[in-house]
Amino acid sequence: MSEAAEKGKKAKNISMVLAKKTTEEKNKALLAIARVLLEDRETIIFENKKDLRRGSRAGLPENILDRMMLNEKRIHDMSEAVRLLVKLRDPVGETVEEIKKENGLLILKKKVPVGVIGMIYEARPNVTVDAATLAIKTGNAVILRGSSSSICSNQALVSSIHRALAETGFPEDAVQLIEDTGREAATEMFHLRDYLDVLIPRGGKKLIDTVVREASVPVIETGAGNCHLYIDETAQPEMAVRIAVNAKTQRPSVCNAIETLLIHAHWLAQHGEKLLSALAEKGVEIYGDEPVRKIFPAAKEAAEEDWYCEYLALKISVKTVEDTDEAIRHINRYGTKHSEAIVTEDGARAEHFMFMVDAACVYHNASTRFTDGFEFGYGAEIGISTQKLHARGPMGLDALTSTKYWIYGSGQVRE
Amino acid sequence: MSEAAEKGKKAKNISMVLAKKTTEEKNKALLAIARVLLEDRETIIFENKKDLRRGSRAGLPENILDRMMLNEKRIHDMSEAVRLLVKLRDPVGETVEEIKKENGLLILKKKVPVGVIGMIYEARPNVTVDAATLAIKTGNAVILRGSSSSICSNQALVSSIHRALAETGFPEDAVQLIEDTGREAATEMFHLRDYLDVLIPRGGKKLIDTVVREASVPVIETGAGNCHLYIDETAQPEMAVRIAVNAKTQRPSVCNAIETLLIHAHWLAQHGEKLLSALAEKGVEIYGDEPVRKIFPAAKEAAEEDWYCEYLALKISVKTVEDTDEAIRHINRYGTKHSEAIVTEDGARAEHFMFMVDAACVYHNASTRFTDGFEFGYGAEIGISTQKLHARGPMGLDALTSTKYWIYGSGQVRE
Repeated sequence: MSEAAEKGKKAKNISMVLAKKTTEEKNKALLAIARVLLEDRETIIFENKKDLRRGSRAGLPENILDRMMLNEKRIHDMSEAVRLLVKLRDPVGETVEEIKKENGLLILKKKVPVGVIGMIYEARPNVTVDAATLAIKTGNAVILRGSSSSICSNQALVSSIHRALAETGFPEDAVQLIEDTGREAATEMFHLRDYLDVLIPRGGKKLIDTVVREASVPVIETGAGNCHLYIDETAQPEMAVRIAVNAKTQRPSVCNAIETLLIHAHWLAQHGEKLLSALAEKGVEIYGDEPVRKIFPAAKEAAEEDWYCEYLALKISVKTVEDTDEAIRHINRYGTKHSEAIVTEDGARAEHFMFMVDAACVYHNASTRFTDGFEFGYGAEIGISTQKLHARGPMGLDALTSTKYWIYGSGQVRE
Repeated sequence: MSEAAEKGKKAKNISMVLAKKTTEEKNKALLAIARVLLEDRETIIFENKKDLRRGSRAGLPENILDRMMLNEKRIHDMSEAVRLLVKLRDPVGETVEEIKKENGLLILKKKVPVGVIGMIYEARPNVTVDAATLAIKTGNAVILRGSSSSICSNQALVSSIHRALAETGFPEDAVQLIEDTGREAATEMFHLRDYLDVLIPRGGKKLIDTVVREASVPVIETGAGNCHLYIDETAQPEMAVRIAVNAKTQRPSVCNAIETLLIHAHWLAQHGEKLLSALAEKGVEIYGDEPVRKIFPAAKEAAEEDWYCEYLALKISVKTVEDTDEAIRHINRYGTKHSEAIVTEDGARAEHFMFMVDAACVYHNASTRFTDGFEFGYGAEIGISTQKLHARGPMGLDALTSTKYWIYGSGQVRE
């Protein structure tokens, strides 16, 4: 039996026990994790440095190395996030529906853990702690499969988590790391239908596409964000510029940053130069269609692939449109169903846009950067779902639960 | 472009228009369908007879031919079911969450249609009308792919539905039938990620397994039901017999009928003969382990594969267990996570069983036959989900909806 199957089986065996853990027991384990992460910080940083040295020798880009890096501050922040998780409402056990039948049957629909969660993710050791602690809070078991580049960091983190679980009498098998970082180990997780209830990929588009295409275990698709901002002809110029600059430049590497601006031709003629200059001043490279380049000659020419591109960098594509419907058509064609915004003073036009654009989050007069579990007040986030089933948009603790019907009778049979 | 891709594209193009249809418009279309089905009944029966003759020549079993058969009474029942659907609450547009942020942002989470639903099903022409009308009620488009054995019936039904839609000005592309009944057409639907938002297979285990294994479009798994009844040592004998006989014999061909009885050894010794005789009197063939065959010598020997088998017929496997935990382990190993029941006078034991058994519906002192959208009061049923994501158990109209966040601002940007 392979490592993935063996660990999957252990997780499945323990999952009904985890489902019965009380909120108090789960919170006690979480507090121990928060403490042990701090206690073990030197070991964790030591192991993390091994990954960084190996990554550096292998020529990993600076932004990846930075994302991988753990220091005192980051470990402190991780520990704090776990403490905040303790304060959140535990959804498990909540009754969401109560049906009383004339024949005396009582039907209760209650929230239960999903069971066993498989996480497949790239060089982000913070996902190790996030996923483990969110799973514990919701009574799930988790199988973690991070990338080879972060293996030492992940091993150190999971070993600290195990120490905390052992101290509080919580089953250690609730959190397991796949140590084999070969491609086959991940591929095998795709098909462990007997042991895994869901797979959540976190990372780049290529990783997510592979999991979605190949896995027979149900997948929650997260993350890819080719987000748009449409500036209608009635948009307040000052507001449009503020939102565009924020949505593009406040943190360009994240999925809820915008990648394309759609601008009404009339607005472009009047205010386009001001907007594009403001972006350029922030260091944004502009790829525009012909009318855009006419107004702002520093812009490069946008090619068809620019409309598809999630730059995740200080680059933006800009297209002129004749009306709201052209903007809607463009978004529904090139978008990734993540976050889409309109700036307009016309409420009916905003409603039409928000209705017709097919995305998890649609905005009127606000930055797309708010698509985030913490900003929405969920207090936690396991990812942002861009699919329509189970969960859509920022996923908090509820997204890690399923439901189950408890039916109480006194001998009822069906006539 | 293949038929499936072409029809999928049409469905996707129309889906945002369908999402905007009012409850009144949708109900008007449904009432027209209910009427036209009755008006067209002679044509429908004429076309259905072609399928029956072809099926009969091909040697299809009687129970399949019976399931395929449409007569005046069945068409009348279909039409009535559509009328009942009109009376149900339309979930689309309901606000499920309202978040007001300190910065003035208003976030509304509302129910929206899933989009485009792909139905792949076997020789059940009633699914054609069910799926089409449930989709219309929830603002979804549907692509229907029935089996070749029912193609004439399905064509006749869809043509009646189209006539009703045209009469009421409702887009006909909301309901499309794949006329190519070759295997490739179905396989192609598995991968139409650009056009289909969900695939729902309805039929036997083999069909469902194929869709689940192969499709990259998200799937809702329905139907397979290897359900168990556990009779604890404290079970009231009369109640246990009544429930066992009902759950096995009231309608043996359906997924919520039981396939295995688990009996506590003490109860078996005292009351087993009476129970097994009652089943045998109803024509049930019994496959038992050694203690069962000792008490009831007419029973045949149960093999390992009997514990896995969904007989869907007047057959049952019977196993002796030492305690509740042995019953739980057996169910979690061989069950299909559908419906599982315990008969006991011990409330704590019932709770333990219901908690530890991993299934959509768990029963105390009642027949598993109640797992049904109509019995639960949902007024409609698109299937019974045996998976944990999105929907679990009987799926009513809500299962055909997703959610979307509408975010209203006045220029807010993220700091």
